[in-house]
Amino acid sequence: MSEAVGADDRNEPTTSLDDVVHQKSRLGILAIVHEGRRVEFGYLRDALELTAGNLSQHLSVLEKYGLIHIEKGYDGRRGRTWVTSTRAGTKALRREVDTLRAIVNRVTGESA
Amino acid sequence: MSEAVGADDRNEPTTSLDDVVHQKSRLGILAIVHEGRRVEFGYLRDALELTAGNLSQHLSVLEKYGLIHIEKGYDGRRGRTWVTSTRAGTKALRREVDTLRAIVNRVTGESA
Repeated sequence: MSEAVGADDRNEPTTSLDDVVHQKSRLGILAIVHEGRRVEFGYLRDALELTAGNLSQHLSVLEKYGLIHIEKGYDGRRGRTWVTSTRAGTKALRREVDTLRAIVNRVTGESA
Repeated sequence: MSEAVGADDRNEPTTSLDDVVHQKSRLGILAIVHEGRRVEFGYLRDALELTAGNLSQHLSVLEKYGLIHIEKGYDGRRGRTWVTSTRAGTKALRREVDTLRAIVNRVTGESA
């Protein structure tokens, strides 16, 4: 027990966070592709300041959990990889954002 | 480049997140001990639904980065570990919360 923290504080919003979505690069990917945006691999790599290898790993995790759809194709003769959110991905991002809002409100002392 | 994302979206808030603070259990610890609260180990373990070993590891990381202060003592004859935030910890939490707010606003389409 704490000296200063009451029982009302027990329901900690951070325990609802899902590591698959909360990890900062994956959160960044989902935030960029949300609302049906179709985003190219190179754009994500630059925007999120990741190496190609690192981005690939995060995309694999998100695809494995059904949160994004990956599409390989060509832009002229150059191979391209396109990423879109799935319905589950949009839902997971919305859940994460609701929890982040609860954390912000908790820390800043505002009511949810 | 993306088909649908403009240059204005380039400054991705998730790239400002610090993994030391953003990891969900460590974020939970900092959120609970913020504002000078002095919190006991067992309380953190239960509130964050962690094993003792797992909590110890996260506390070590936060202590290593100077974000919390750990104090060992006794409550009667029982050993106790108390955790408080440092000034750097409070600052790091505030930075994290500012970034989380920016992410929430970005995803929900509100202006920051």
